[in-house]
Amino acid sequence: MTALDELIAAGAGEPPFDIVRAVYAELSVSDLDASAEFYAGLLGFAVSERTDDALYLRGWGERLHHSLVLVRGERPACTRLGFRVRAEGDLEALEADFRRRGCETRWASGERAGMGRVLRAWDPFGYPLEFFHEMATLEPLLQRFDIHSGAPVVRLDHFNIHSPDCEGALRFWQELGFRLTEYISTDGAPERLTGGWLARKQTVHDLALTAGRGPRLHHLGLYVDEPGGVLRTCDRFAAAHRSEAIERGPGRHGVSNAFFVYLRDPDGHRVELYSCDYYTGDPGHRPIRWSVSDPRCRSFYGTRAPDSWYEESSDVIGPDGAPVPTSDSTVDERDARSEVMA
Amino acid sequence: MTALDELIAAGAGEPPFDIVRAVYAELSVSDLDASAEFYAGLLGFAVSERTDDALYLRGWGERLHHSLVLVRGERPACTRLGFRVRAEGDLEALEADFRRRGCETRWASGERAGMGRVLRAWDPFGYPLEFFHEMATLEPLLQRFDIHSGAPVVRLDHFNIHSPDCEGALRFWQELGFRLTEYISTDGAPERLTGGWLARKQTVHDLALTAGRGPRLHHLGLYVDEPGGVLRTCDRFAAAHRSEAIERGPGRHGVSNAFFVYLRDPDGHRVELYSCDYYTGDPGHRPIRWSVSDPRCRSFYGTRAPDSWYEESSDVIGPDGAPVPTSDSTVDERDARSEVMA
Amino acid sequence: MTALDELIAAGAGEPPFDIVRAVYAELSVSDLDASAEFYAGLLGFAVSERTDDALYLRGWGERLHHSLVLVRGERPACTRLGFRVRAEGDLEALEADFRRRGCETRWASGERAGMGRVLRAWDPFGYPLEFFHEMATLEPLLQRFDIHSGAPVVRLDHFNIHSPDCEGALRFWQELGFRLTEYISTDGAPERLTGGWLARKQTVHDLALTAGRGPRLHHLGLYVDEPGGVLRTCDRFAAAHRSEAIERGPGRHGVSNAFFVYLRDPDGHRVELYSCDYYTGDPGHRPIRWSVSDPRCRSFYGTRAPDSWYEESSDVIGPDGAPVPTSDSTVDERDARSEVMA
Amino acid sequence: MTALDELIAAGAGEPPFDIVRAVYAELSVSDLDASAEFYAGLLGFAVSERTDDALYLRGWGERLHHSLVLVRGERPACTRLGFRVRAEGDLEALEADFRRRGCETRWASGERAGMGRVLRAWDPFGYPLEFFHEMATLEPLLQRFDIHSGAPVVRLDHFNIHSPDCEGALRFWQELGFRLTEYISTDGAPERLTGGWLARKQTVHDLALTAGRGPRLHHLGLYVDEPGGVLRTCDRFAAAHRSEAIERGPGRHGVSNAFFVYLRDPDGHRVELYSCDYYTGDPGHRPIRWSVSDPRCRSFYGTRAPDSWYEESSDVIGPDGAPVPTSDSTVDERDARSEVMA
Repeated sequence: MTALDELIAAGAGEPPFDIVRAVYAELSVSDLDASAEFYAGLLGFAVSERTDDALYLRGWGERLHHSLVLVRGERPACTRLGFRVRAEGDLEALEADFRRRGCETRWASGERAGMGRVLRAWDPFGYPLEFFHEMATLEPLLQRFDIHSGAPVVRLDHFNIHSPDCEGALRFWQELGFRLTEYISTDGAPERLTGGWLARKQTVHDLALTAGRGPRLHHLGLYVDEPGGVLRTCDRFAAAHRSEAIERGPGRHGVSNAFFVYLRDPDGHRVELYSCDYYTGDPGHRPIRWSVSDPRCRSFYGTRAPDSWYEESSDVIGPDGAPVPTSDSTVDERDARSEVMA
Repeated sequence: MTALDELIAAGAGEPPFDIVRAVYAELSVSDLDASAEFYAGLLGFAVSERTDDALYLRGWGERLHHSLVLVRGERPACTRLGFRVRAEGDLEALEADFRRRGCETRWASGERAGMGRVLRAWDPFGYPLEFFHEMATLEPLLQRFDIHSGAPVVRLDHFNIHSPDCEGALRFWQELGFRLTEYISTDGAPERLTGGWLARKQTVHDLALTAGRGPRLHHLGLYVDEPGGVLRTCDRFAAAHRSEAIERGPGRHGVSNAFFVYLRDPDGHRVELYSCDYYTGDPGHRPIRWSVSDPRCRSFYGTRAPDSWYEESSDVIGPDGAPVPTSDSTVDERDARSEVMA
Repeated sequence: MTALDELIAAGAGEPPFDIVRAVYAELSVSDLDASAEFYAGLLGFAVSERTDDALYLRGWGERLHHSLVLVRGERPACTRLGFRVRAEGDLEALEADFRRRGCETRWASGERAGMGRVLRAWDPFGYPLEFFHEMATLEPLLQRFDIHSGAPVVRLDHFNIHSPDCEGALRFWQELGFRLTEYISTDGAPERLTGGWLARKQTVHDLALTAGRGPRLHHLGLYVDEPGGVLRTCDRFAAAHRSEAIERGPGRHGVSNAFFVYLRDPDGHRVELYSCDYYTGDPGHRPIRWSVSDPRCRSFYGTRAPDSWYEESSDVIGPDGAPVPTSDSTVDERDARSEVMA
Repeated sequence: MTALDELIAAGAGEPPFDIVRAVYAELSVSDLDASAEFYAGLLGFAVSERTDDALYLRGWGERLHHSLVLVRGERPACTRLGFRVRAEGDLEALEADFRRRGCETRWASGERAGMGRVLRAWDPFGYPLEFFHEMATLEPLLQRFDIHSGAPVVRLDHFNIHSPDCEGALRFWQELGFRLTEYISTDGAPERLTGGWLARKQTVHDLALTAGRGPRLHHLGLYVDEPGGVLRTCDRFAAAHRSEAIERGPGRHGVSNAFFVYLRDPDGHRVELYSCDYYTGDPGHRPIRWSVSDPRCRSFYGTRAPDSWYEESSDVIGPDGAPVPTSDSTVDERDARSEVMA
């Protein structure tokens, strides 16, 4: 049994708090109007609220106030990754856990529209997490087909983070109660983790790990109902002479069964339109392992990921307001990449 | 060999003119704004031009100026069914043909936006036909996915007319060079025709005959690219609290393989969203016969057509500007209808 | 606040056991080969195992041994509705709960292929429930697109039961920890419940209530990934001259947002192909109310349900092996049905 | 006006024969069983007939005997490109035309199953053409959804040939009556043609020209009804561990609006699954020009074509039974390729 096997066998912890799911991210953007045109105009997010320096967007299936907050900032970065907890008291339990780990935490209230009390915490790797229970709710728009546009985006589905230490990050997120559903690892000894998919809700993931320079945000996963929605978005971008925003895809991942496309927003932040997820909620749900040398794990078919997909990501902002310094990963999926694919 | 068999075996004539295809219809509507909201707002037609009393619409794949003209009028009716001919000289040949038949014809020019010289002719049954070669062209919008909405409608595909004498109408349209591609007939003697599909372009039809009180326009067939477009339109109408506009479907016809939905516009004019057509351009292409007692001919699956679908239609306007008097058909598909379907 | 409002406000209980989800049903069928052709041949279920008198089928996304068991029997009936619990010990807690209610319970082990210890229990209304934790697992076939056929069916999603006492049934299932996600009720006083959707997993339902003569099984809901899969199944049935098996649809429910079709198997058991579900796992997720007089609740668009859909259902088998006697509901949705729909 | 402009302005000729459309190709393959598994098993062609050394396949929408003939041969090559003519007498007119050009022609009859008299002709560039009027017909399978598998393929839509002299080839095919519908050309002087799409039937093409070493067959275009069919095929190939057969795509071409994927068969012959074509049958239909420097012409979105797509093709067989010697093109699209795409 490898060290990685042991870590995986340990499974999800049973901490004294209950994280429900990934709900929203906050991104710093350089030109709020350009970002609005990208996310609301082309991608077709619903607008929940706009203030002088922020835009609040949500998916058509989201009942909470926002799936994405865009804040005008000096430099593009990811400033928050927001998770909902089941009850208000979970926040105190989480604070205790983060403090025990020596992590910086802060309480805030009313900083952002629609939000109540929040716990901000920087995890041991530097990612800016936020936990909350209360958020304003809005009318569901799932069946407002008459005003849907684009894909349309249903909800924020997951965060994918670029991590120089995937094994350490896996341990951490398992301790927070996340279940590993799929992973990619090397074949040789030692077996190294190059990608991990971890879930709280009953889908493939709320949070994914991608080996690489970090801490950085690799992408936000936005759920769309079916592959046809992914294709309509590609067509919209190309027709609007914005096909350079399409970095990778459309295609299918072996991992997660996603039919996807990756887009880069005007600041380079990456979003994935993600469809074809599956149910993972049964007890004893065993994670699927993919060998890094199986080209189907990342590209079930279609073209291999471009280097930019492995190398570029969004900085994350630390407690001091500056980008968290990054370090490289000691493992790179591309080293084991098959020659099969173009 | 029945009389119908003989008529069908005679096949398409080779007249001294070349009708290319059905291009547009003109409808009289009582409230132009309400019709605009229906056709441009909900169905998603592109607007080519609007004047005080008329709205010109076209499908996203149409390069000619219009697929549909809505004219403000005292009473809802169908005022023109427009076919394009291959060359300007075909108009004279058509005029001669109609005169030989004793039909009323008229020349006009510039009456409608985007049009050149046109030949108007009332066929022997009273339908208001129009033939033209010249029409203004506009930029193709087929790939303007960024501004498409709704289905979207690609083009006007066909006219379906309610006819009290389908055999006579079949003979007439075959003489004009139309090829029969599919038909429905009764099993007993005499074999009666209850529906016929006739084409000039290489699809299943430009013109269809439905046995029933006429002359009236049964529906306009609007082409959409795939069943998903039909469903999106249903969703849009329902979300806009307009599901009562959906008269029949979604479902599939055995005839023509169409995946369809029938809608009624604010004046009761019927339009079909029509997808899944097929190629019929080979020489010797044999028409497919469906028995009227095979429920799959009209409803390959799904619910049987409501009575309104058999009984209601749009009046057509005669040379005198008044609705052409109608007469009943002596055959009714519903007499042979199977008890299988709900 | 009506009595129904109070019942709904009470919400899901927090019983000392954890039901994970609906997993499988067992149906008694008169001709096992005919049923195999229907479920495995036309619908495209994967076959897990076949014995002399039983066929075990599963969806392509199911990792457990079966989603459906067909057992050769003298008369068609529903013999079991199987739910998985989180841990083996939940079975004892459930037994205690059912005994407290005066319900008949039984333990069994190894009666069915792939199963460990099971608790059988007839609920206070007579439905034959089964609870289990252990079941053999099989390789996931979700990505075996090369052998998928038909829709294909992903998993059994839910049971829908015909109930003469929906309010009582709602109370019972809430006490078992099920969350109400949507419901239909009458507008007048007293407000009566005519339909309820209750979930344990994070979808719209694991169990639905339909007012009507019961206890009977109304239908099994089988999940397919997208509307295109529903349409492909309709096309397959029609092409195989089996369109009479299509009882209702294709269409969309307002409730649950499902794009659906209802089929009747060779014994008359009803199955729904069900797509377009949504996430319901957040704490405080508020149920959506639909007025019974809003035609969109049952048919967002399309044709109204035929009477058979309201009246016919599968008997359920009691502890004595005989069908449980049924009684009528005192409320009928059709009384409030709008005249809008055909 | 450039020389190319003049050539295009000349338009389609009006020769004394009428070519209806591209119908079938014949390929020499090294392992007939492997090819059968690829084309009938994975792609889902219908099998019309199999002899000891040949397999006859047709699309589900084809009424003629075959869309593709695979013949066991020593080396992989394209041996025939078959076009149907409107009448038997067109063959004599074609023979005269080819002889006038100094091209080798031959008459044959009954060499291939289902065929009557055929005229074989090697065009001035060396491509092995075949013309015929008579072919056996078979029952249409368009609506046999119960036995469809894979995409499914509807018909052979077009031939795409690798040509070292696109301008010359354009002139030749225009003289044969083909209409240019779209083309790609260079921006500088002289304006060079790098791709041309020419049609006889009312779609975008029956024959396309791709600048490159030739005469060789670049690919066979197989029509599928919608993008969903293209994706299902990709999924099937990947699931069968055959994703290396996917050379390019899925993606959309700007030219022709095709949603496509390119596959390589076991001998390296290339086939395109092609959906989303459009109507081109109107008189005066103007060809669309794309600049070679517009990356959207070949890839409306998605990844640029790999070099293999530009360089590799199937040899064609000359009158002597040996591959026709090839020469390079003096223009290469890749020279003008934008840096935008990955």
